[in-house]
Amino acid sequence: MENKQTIHFASKPVIQSGYSIVGPKEATSLFAQYFDYKLKNDFFGEKTYEKAERKILEQAILGAVEKAAISINEVDAMLSGDLLNQIISSGFAARQFNSSFIGLFGACSTMAEGLALGAMMVDGSYFSRVVCATSSHFSTAERQFRYPLELGNQRPPTSQWTVTGAGATILGKDGNGPCITSATLGKVVDWGVIDVNNMGAAMAPAAATTLSTHFHNTKTKPEDYDLVLTGDLGKLGSEILVDLLEEEDFKLGTNYCDCGQMIFHKQDKTFMGGSGAACSAVIFNSYVLNKLQSGQYKKVLFVATGALLSTTSSQQGDSIPCIAHAIVVEANQKEKHHG
Amino acid sequence: MENKQTIHFASKPVIQSGYSIVGPKEATSLFAQYFDYKLKNDFFGEKTYEKAERKILEQAILGAVEKAAISINEVDAMLSGDLLNQIISSGFAARQFNSSFIGLFGACSTMAEGLALGAMMVDGSYFSRVVCATSSHFSTAERQFRYPLELGNQRPPTSQWTVTGAGATILGKDGNGPCITSATLGKVVDWGVIDVNNMGAAMAPAAATTLSTHFHNTKTKPEDYDLVLTGDLGKLGSEILVDLLEEEDFKLGTNYCDCGQMIFHKQDKTFMGGSGAACSAVIFNSYVLNKLQSGQYKKVLFVATGALLSTTSSQQGDSIPCIAHAIVVEANQKEKHHG
Repeated sequence: MENKQTIHFASKPVIQSGYSIVGPKEATSLFAQYFDYKLKNDFFGEKTYEKAERKILEQAILGAVEKAAISINEVDAMLSGDLLNQIISSGFAARQFNSSFIGLFGACSTMAEGLALGAMMVDGSYFSRVVCATSSHFSTAERQFRYPLELGNQRPPTSQWTVTGAGATILGKDGNGPCITSATLGKVVDWGVIDVNNMGAAMAPAAATTLSTHFHNTKTKPEDYDLVLTGDLGKLGSEILVDLLEEEDFKLGTNYCDCGQMIFHKQDKTFMGGSGAACSAVIFNSYVLNKLQSGQYKKVLFVATGALLSTTSSQQGDSIPCIAHAIVVEANQKEKHHG
Repeated sequence: MENKQTIHFASKPVIQSGYSIVGPKEATSLFAQYFDYKLKNDFFGEKTYEKAERKILEQAILGAVEKAAISINEVDAMLSGDLLNQIISSGFAARQFNSSFIGLFGACSTMAEGLALGAMMVDGSYFSRVVCATSSHFSTAERQFRYPLELGNQRPPTSQWTVTGAGATILGKDGNGPCITSATLGKVVDWGVIDVNNMGAAMAPAAATTLSTHFHNTKTKPEDYDLVLTGDLGKLGSEILVDLLEEEDFKLGTNYCDCGQMIFHKQDKTFMGGSGAACSAVIFNSYVLNKLQSGQYKKVLFVATGALLSTTSSQQGDSIPCIAHAIVVEANQKEKHHG
């Protein structure tokens, strides 16, 4: 018996708003005009980077609530996770909100994991409205996963640069926003990559597995979407993904794009591009939603990818288990009553 | 508007099996006869404690699958989290299973968080069958959160001892097992406790908040349950909980019990008792399910509690945000067809 990975949402949960906040480096991105808030300083008035990341996440959630023209008390649950040990950005941010907290860990796949679970909760009428959010911060990630910034360590050419920022999405039953129509929850895939400075290569097989499963289960092809968007494979990882899917006769064309590859400029010297849970979260909650709201995109396949390693697992010689979760978001073509 | 925290499951998802595995210290517990597997050595044949914890979790899942008399391929999704940075026990264990992986982080509340989400997924027909699991290991937790074991550090009298073990539950639509009938998803509560050696005091307000909300929303009282079981408040934390609820006119009587307080013997010198994600997971998946299956218990309120701190947040002077998720499990009183 084949186990089920793809879910169709009969009631088509609506994205009532999305909010993105980014750091100073990301503020010069190609997508800059779409971001809701750009930090001038990545301490954001706080004393530590960790407290700054927490505040960024709080602002993303409050911003999404405001854009949806609701009160924070009208949000039943907060689904959130981040890269920090014990997801402290999310756990501490949740203190500010009077809703159930559902802590997630999907590394950089968190935005898609949250949206898929949130869509189930709204579609199943378990909650009327949820917020799905995630954050990352270059300086918290760097010192937790790699080296102290003060060391001035050299970055290898396959490395990526963690995006500083946060994204939040309000999902509810009603409204005129884009709808989540299906989701494919990924399996953990590990092809034995042990180079922690080559996450793109580690994550590409997970993305390929989820995409291939999604295309098979939904009987769609890459060309059926206006945009197929992966999270943070970066330049190398997305090239590997294109190759892997070609072996399965799925051709990713000019409608395919990777957030990690696109978010920074070449002159930013980020090598393979951006990474981090916020990398896809800020682009999804800005550019992608904007194009769906305007009707320029009718159907988007969003696939956030995550590497489920820790410094401990790497130090013990383990390879990098990876995951990718996919959701389909479509421009709203149905009549919906406001809640 | 009051936001919703309590969910009723119309279809009453069935617990098709539960499996518990414990370390050598836990093997002498009062509950010993109910545990499925007792380790003689907490390395479990592995070279590191982290790899041992991973193997323990894998065995819990495989054991639950076997007890449910199904194949692992009949499990659509694995919902799991643990205490280790980036939930590596869960992420690595997931490599062994051919199902979607939904990574959670709820610290020691994970068993209840997973069961609540799993019940939504089965009740909403998003998945036919899921496994909800969690693990903890004294030696991985100790060196990650506190001190190297080799230091022989003195333990303060308010401390608790992380349980080595794992629990896994198979949830599905059909069968004769106990049913999950409702869940109350907790909010993050932080009363400012900063003593990382007094988790019971930190978590008690979260447990009180969730229980009080649950009793209000379901119009029930503590005495309506054969057992009200908290996760790992320990001796001090559970006394605080009793006091806090008494202030709200809910009286926890002799039907109230805390897994942390009960799991070890006094001569084990664990001070306030057990803790860790596995503490409640192994008792829920052994003793509690046994009593529900035999009909000795008709209705159990299971409330797992979690402390959402990290060493980084503590080092930065932050207090300890806590959470508690509750589920109601009832003995099966309905006719159900086998799937």
